[in-house]
Amino acid sequence: MYDLVIIGGGPGGVAAGVYAARKKIKTVLITDTFGGQSLVSNEIGNWIGDIKVSGFDLAQRLEAHLKSHPDIEIDEGDLVENIKAQMPNDKSTSSFRVTTKNGKTFETKTILLTCGSSRRKLGVPGEKEYEGHGVVYCSTCDAPLFNGKDIVIVGGGNSALEGVADSLPYANSITLMVRSNVLRGDPVTQDEIKANPKVKILFQSEVQEVFGDGKMVQGVKYLDKVSNEIKTLPVQGVFVEIGSVPNCELVRGMVTIDAMNEIVVDHKTQKTSVPGIWAAGDVTDVLYKQNNISVGDAVKAVLNIYDYLRGVDRTAVTDSNK
Amino acid sequence: MYDLVIIGGGPGGVAAGVYAARKKIKTVLITDTFGGQSLVSNEIGNWIGDIKVSGFDLAQRLEAHLKSHPDIEIDEGDLVENIKAQMPNDKSTSSFRVTTKNGKTFETKTILLTCGSSRRKLGVPGEKEYEGHGVVYCSTCDAPLFNGKDIVIVGGGNSALEGVADSLPYANSITLMVRSNVLRGDPVTQDEIKANPKVKILFQSEVQEVFGDGKMVQGVKYLDKVSNEIKTLPVQGVFVEIGSVPNCELVRGMVTIDAMNEIVVDHKTQKTSVPGIWAAGDVTDVLYKQNNISVGDAVKAVLNIYDYLRGVDRTAVTDSNK
Repeated sequence: MYDLVIIGGGPGGVAAGVYAARKKIKTVLITDTFGGQSLVSNEIGNWIGDIKVSGFDLAQRLEAHLKSHPDIEIDEGDLVENIKAQMPNDKSTSSFRVTTKNGKTFETKTILLTCGSSRRKLGVPGEKEYEGHGVVYCSTCDAPLFNGKDIVIVGGGNSALEGVADSLPYANSITLMVRSNVLRGDPVTQDEIKANPKVKILFQSEVQEVFGDGKMVQGVKYLDKVSNEIKTLPVQGVFVEIGSVPNCELVRGMVTIDAMNEIVVDHKTQKTSVPGIWAAGDVTDVLYKQNNISVGDAVKAVLNIYDYLRGVDRTAVTDSNK
Repeated sequence: MYDLVIIGGGPGGVAAGVYAARKKIKTVLITDTFGGQSLVSNEIGNWIGDIKVSGFDLAQRLEAHLKSHPDIEIDEGDLVENIKAQMPNDKSTSSFRVTTKNGKTFETKTILLTCGSSRRKLGVPGEKEYEGHGVVYCSTCDAPLFNGKDIVIVGGGNSALEGVADSLPYANSITLMVRSNVLRGDPVTQDEIKANPKVKILFQSEVQEVFGDGKMVQGVKYLDKVSNEIKTLPVQGVFVEIGSVPNCELVRGMVTIDAMNEIVVDHKTQKTSVPGIWAAGDVTDVLYKQNNISVGDAVKAVLNIYDYLRGVDRTAVTDSNK
């Protein structure tokens, strides 16, 4: 019987693993790879404490930090396939059975979900080839890299509007490419971007292809659905902001998930609706999805799990010597 | 008029400064020094992404990361002395006037408090001399450094009990030194530590002096209040766990502060009870006080401040394109 199964090897999962090791909690961490979504970033400027770090280097550092703790068991190159609650008659001592694609089974007292989210992709030629070489999926992270550049932001919801707002101080010009004929998302942000001469909005337009010189993006080809013509837009950056999908199919029907497919957590403890299951990072309903936020919230989760395993309810502490 | 004044230069303040710079928010950060409480740690093993880093090096890296953004104004070597809300007739557009010890004045739309907390000190000879050389103030951080060592933990409340629990997997022997004749704190943790043969509890005992060989701690002298004798306890580690004091005197009477002198925040947005003032890190009622938690929560705060400055209420977003 494990004390804790951590699902995911992004910054949150690794942070949880390091803290679990330091607390000597009997833990297994299950992940396909290390580093999470940032792995593909060329240059990360907002990993606090490092002026610049590549996604690849950060992933390696996270992995090394975790593996410096030999007590943590790691089931690498594997994915969780099923979680089953084992509820004995005495409901206070529930446990879980976690089974994986590679056929392993882990019995555990608690679970921490740090399975992140996946950015929705355009699914057009050139997108994958230029990922991290002009094609990006996180405007908050990458806007500063496109200083003085011409960019296209694809999408018509809040993610896309935020992408425009994030890019305004940096980009030379911004084309917002919207598939439908309306913008969704906050009216305030809509007003802000419509008023800015840097921004041009193309409605009823759909990206067909990303092209470049083999090294970096040089533009997109798109379908103008009004004229039914294929047109070319020369840009150095393609921000794909058509939303993301939290990776929580695993626990659907088990824990409470909101309308945006995010796991609802108590933001003080990171508890989900099911006792014994915690979640942290992009898979949760945290308002902002950022590496450092995932780390901090995963640390909260593990420290709360440590309390739970020992039967301590810290939220009930009222004396002045917390 | 500034958009944001950040008060504090620990990990939270620096994280906030970096994100504010990237969002091009007009910001001044006011701090005495950089690095926060960790500055005095010899070896930090739980700064995620680094297997080991000294407190001094971490502080320098944080400072360098912040200063790599020349747009952020830094008022260094200074302390905030007073914050005054300026509430015009239209209450929706409040602003604040921040004045400092060095006589500076900043008008600002928002404030982020990342002023941290200060550990209570014993105030005995040798304590300061051996700080970071056997005398430590954070058991969660430092317990693993005392593997196989004999330690004394000073205190009788939850911090001290947690210190014992944190040290059980590592220390050779633990003496819990309690000034009064009772233990306070969780009964569960009390039972756990009383049952462990590694732990000895000395009631009615008061540390009088920390002594060593000039490099590292070798023991403490304490007053046994029953026999009224000064006794000697040879140890290699002195964990001072007599609580900490959040540095929030500045905003007392302004924002809601709880019985533990912590600023009460909404844990999703880091908002305090006063519109226009946010807080993050050890100064808040966050359940666990850790560097990475302060960083994550400070990032949440700045991203929420960015929304606020633009009039966006993200908690009201309900469409599926967040």
